[in-house]
Amino acid sequence: MTEPLKIALAGLGTVGGGVIRLLEANAALIARRAGRPIEVVAVSARDRSKDRGVDLSRFRWVDDTGALAVLDGVDVVVELIGGADGPALALARNSIAAGRAFVTANKAMIAHHGLELAEAAERRGVALKYEAAVAGGIPVIKGLREGAAANELAHVYGILNGTCNYILSTMEAEGRDFAEVLAEAQALGFAEADPSFDIDGVDAAHKLSILASLAFGTRIDFDSVAVTGIRHVIAADIAEAAALGFKVRLLGYAETRPDGLFQRVHPHLVPVAHPLAHVSGSLNAVVAEGNFVGRLLFEGRGAGDGPTASAVVADLIDIARGEYGPAFAMPVSALADRPAADAGEGRGRAYLRFTVEDKVGVLAEIAAAMRDSNVSIESLIQRGVMPDGSVLVAIVTHDCPERCVTQALERLEGSPSIRGRPMLMHILD
Amino acid sequence: MTEPLKIALAGLGTVGGGVIRLLEANAALIARRAGRPIEVVAVSARDRSKDRGVDLSRFRWVDDTGALAVLDGVDVVVELIGGADGPALALARNSIAAGRAFVTANKAMIAHHGLELAEAAERRGVALKYEAAVAGGIPVIKGLREGAAANELAHVYGILNGTCNYILSTMEAEGRDFAEVLAEAQALGFAEADPSFDIDGVDAAHKLSILASLAFGTRIDFDSVAVTGIRHVIAADIAEAAALGFKVRLLGYAETRPDGLFQRVHPHLVPVAHPLAHVSGSLNAVVAEGNFVGRLLFEGRGAGDGPTASAVVADLIDIARGEYGPAFAMPVSALADRPAADAGEGRGRAYLRFTVEDKVGVLAEIAAAMRDSNVSIESLIQRGVMPDGSVLVAIVTHDCPERCVTQALERLEGSPSIRGRPMLMHILD
Repeated sequence: MTEPLKIALAGLGTVGGGVIRLLEANAALIARRAGRPIEVVAVSARDRSKDRGVDLSRFRWVDDTGALAVLDGVDVVVELIGGADGPALALARNSIAAGRAFVTANKAMIAHHGLELAEAAERRGVALKYEAAVAGGIPVIKGLREGAAANELAHVYGILNGTCNYILSTMEAEGRDFAEVLAEAQALGFAEADPSFDIDGVDAAHKLSILASLAFGTRIDFDSVAVTGIRHVIAADIAEAAALGFKVRLLGYAETRPDGLFQRVHPHLVPVAHPLAHVSGSLNAVVAEGNFVGRLLFEGRGAGDGPTASAVVADLIDIARGEYGPAFAMPVSALADRPAADAGEGRGRAYLRFTVEDKVGVLAEIAAAMRDSNVSIESLIQRGVMPDGSVLVAIVTHDCPERCVTQALERLEGSPSIRGRPMLMHILD
Repeated sequence: MTEPLKIALAGLGTVGGGVIRLLEANAALIARRAGRPIEVVAVSARDRSKDRGVDLSRFRWVDDTGALAVLDGVDVVVELIGGADGPALALARNSIAAGRAFVTANKAMIAHHGLELAEAAERRGVALKYEAAVAGGIPVIKGLREGAAANELAHVYGILNGTCNYILSTMEAEGRDFAEVLAEAQALGFAEADPSFDIDGVDAAHKLSILASLAFGTRIDFDSVAVTGIRHVIAADIAEAAALGFKVRLLGYAETRPDGLFQRVHPHLVPVAHPLAHVSGSLNAVVAEGNFVGRLLFEGRGAGDGPTASAVVADLIDIARGEYGPAFAMPVSALADRPAADAGEGRGRAYLRFTVEDKVGVLAEIAAAMRDSNVSIESLIQRGVMPDGSVLVAIVTHDCPERCVTQALERLEGSPSIRGRPMLMHILD
């Protein structure tokens, strides 16, 4: 096994450059660990002339990215282009069809087409690996697929988007509002010019749907993830949460329930004693709870060239060692096809925040809506009048069915005393 | 691959019983994930008649544990007897020699004989796996061997002994002293009747030496681990540390230095903002810092039947899948043989606590010893007189060479003003 593992690399953005730098910087160590050298032999990207700070002259340049799929002398195609469909998907299908192992960091493509690709890889007997698609450098795909494989997992959840966590922890540390912190994050390059995939929770949902499949042995079902991002979290929510002993975090949360698979991305209140409350800045963390192992936590850097390259090359090392198998831990045909659970059937505590007029009877109206929906109130804080004349009312409910909370909010819909839409966050207990 | 993987199990204590219960409870799921059933076919333990709360009648009972090594129809021998040598080691050697895969939770045996066994397993082409030997249910062997394999790792450290962490966090929460909390932990079954392997740091040192080998690609060198346990930590140390913004944790800490491999188990002051400061009770956690991935943290339950069984069965699933390779990430012949680093060459901040006589000049004596050893003092706290008439002086030094701190302590040795031996803890920065 001293023959090098030969790589064709599609996409030379931040991560692609990171992979090239990593394979060069750690070449000797990787060869010892992998049992043989790992060598990039061909690369492809849109623009050949762009300066990427890495020397590409050693590699064969291929103008047509799609041609990497069938290039002679290539063992593994690494796709770092991105996008659920288009060139990335075509490259994946054609590489696997041509008998090449395939490694990707593309969460959108795996969330939408992972099962199709895994089936093709099984038929062709090649590896399909995607450690970098979820939580960047944290080996959580491996942690679930292998490390926790002996367990029936009850829940898997975590902080899956570094941009959102950076924004929320900055709001928390500095008492500032969302829009201001987002603008700053964009200026600093921590958030995309078009940030909606991150802040509206879609990126986290892609990752969650992949984790859920591995954790529960179910088919990936991205479409049934209920997604709410962080746009409507205000500084006062974070302050109220802090006063109540919580931090605000955007969590992806999945569990198996009697009526099906429950998957949701939503801002949550996390008790300060929970390890996820200490995950700040752009870090990611994933918790899995198994029936024998108990609670496992994996934490680290969820994005950036170095961490993502680390995960891509870990996949390559597994392939070089011949240590790989079904992409989703079992053959696709063995994955269970579970319906989406009805969120209303779930139970829990909730945080509700209303921005209301400063006038007589508003609190009574809210309290009545709660009572009439069978929602019992654990705590309620009403702070003094805001500069714009409105008043904030923050409520934590007792544990109750989610449908009751939804009903209470429906009852209050259209109330002339309530400004804007109420904020609902779930409490992680 | 629908032929079951057939297991012979040696040792039916807490963990052995856990493995049997786990394989039974999660049998269907494990068969899906492993690609085939995993079946215990034979068991052996000292006492056949003991009630273990599991039905053993389905399994072939073997009186002579050593005979499991050569039993017909066995694919994997699982050793849960314990002890670095003796029957466990004989079983390991003979099982591997007979061409059986071998899985163990035995940290002492791996720390002392892991390289010999790994070489034998390589020659014979069989798996040797030991996920359960370090940090119980946390897949940290896999995390280092595979997940972080693309990285040059600068440090690996963590909370590796749940008994010590339970004692320290109970001392912290309740302000009580070591001996009292230990006695209570023993009464509750959280500490062994003979607790010295745990509280003197030997158990953590076994685990650290294994982690260091995986992290750095070096030969296991248990003998060069410098080991200090937690016996001499007093409640006042924890209170002083808290006042300074630290928690006290027993850490195993390893790094590669220009002059060699540095490995130490010692009580440390951990800044409250560091994730290890939040690891309380009997939990374990391991941190690895890689040159591309940055800081990774793995946290979970480090002991107990369920978590340990989870790790043992994860190894079995890897074997059933055929996804395994060299036990220490590379052939034993490729592991570097590095000398032990000189601890004195290291730098850092230190916490020193003296119990002194309440009389004139003691502080000047201590301060002079520091000055004459070139140790600069960052902070010093002297509290009022204790009930026994002594006074506590707690010092945090600035960053300095460790040899200077050692010299300062040597200068003060035998001073009639200092009662007992000073406490030294390193600060994790």
